Amino acid sequence: MAKVVLHYFNGRGRMETIRWLLAVAGVEFEEEFITAPHKYEKLVSDGDLVFGQLPMVEIDGMKLVQTKAILNYIAGKYNLYGKDLKQRAMIDMYSEGLRDLMEQFLVLCILSPAELKTRLENIQAKATGRYLPVYSVAPSTLLMTSSAVQTSICWRPQLCWRRNSLRFSQISQMLRLSRGG
Amino acid sequence: MAKVVLHYFNGRGRMETIRWLLAVAGVEFEEEFITAPHKYEKLVSDGDLVFGQLPMVEIDGMKLVQTKAILNYIAGKYNLYGKDLKQRAMIDMYSEGLRDLMEQFLVLCILSPAELKTRLENIQAKATGRYLPVYSVAPSTLLMTSSAVQTSICWRPQLCWRRNSLRFSQISQMLRLSRGG
Repeated sequence: MAKVVLHYFNGRGRMETIRWLLAVAGVEFEEEFITAPHKYEKLVSDGDLVFGQLPMVEIDGMKLVQTKAILNYIAGKYNLYGKDLKQRAMIDMYSEGLRDLMEQFLVLCILSPAELKTRLENIQAKATGRYLPVYSVAPSTLLMTSSAVQTSICWRPQLCWRRNSLRFSQISQMLRLSRGG
Repeated sequence: MAKVVLHYFNGRGRMETIRWLLAVAGVEFEEEFITAPHKYEKLVSDGDLVFGQLPMVEIDGMKLVQTKAILNYIAGKYNLYGKDLKQRAMIDMYSEGLRDLMEQFLVLCILSPAELKTRLENIQAKATGRYLPVYSVAPSTLLMTSSAVQTSICWRPQLCWRRNSLRFSQISQMLRLSRGG
């Protein structure tokens, strides 16, 4: 089997969820860190980055880009994406919910200090009132409906990956709040 | 077969891609428009909206939320999601690319007029230089590799839906630019 090669910067970022999923799937992989501009420019000039962006993963003869497309492919191939369409829909629904929450953070870097404070309060309210409570209830309910160990593996990473990608200081603060801690 | 019911505001928004996909799949559906606050509040109090958000679609005994989860479920059920994992990965990759582009628009509503101008120029540069050229080449290439009519149907909506969801005046301007028109 051709080796799986991950192309990304030497950091967690958007590749981290892919590394986790490959680890859960038991797939060995190599990493090509983009440590200098010329390495990125070579990938672009070789036409390896469809949208000019990283992460990119070489797998099964493809050069896949877009984090979600890569995750879906790996999850599908290694039976970590539910046992049928309905379970897959639940996995999609819960992982998309966390993506929603993550997207709230996208604009933070362009806000003024005053706007940032308001925005963070808004995100915190949404996170603790809307998003995180869903995940503190959902997994056990979902796991109770599943019979295979495989399923328990497939739910957990979908939830964990997303949390891992958030800014830890902010998300841990929110989790403390949602737990009343 | 239980009827499919769409719950959303009386407008295109995030539900429009779902309507298109159901139409392509030949699935009849009904719509419950949220025309007053009490209708939305009833859905929330009944626990029908996992994240307190619309769109929500009743289908096959589920009350699905999250646009992408709904689209994936319909596409999977009606054989509009590629003939294998690799085709599905391509569909995911190209639809996620358009989602990237759409996300650029999210912050526009909170920017000052001066910031808005800069941001729009930035989006326009990315759209014409990075995203739209991919789609002006990709579909024919992808279609050439497929043998079933089904596949030609499955690529097209994924591309069209996303375009449809963008702000028309902006996207049409970008398309003109990317075509040199």
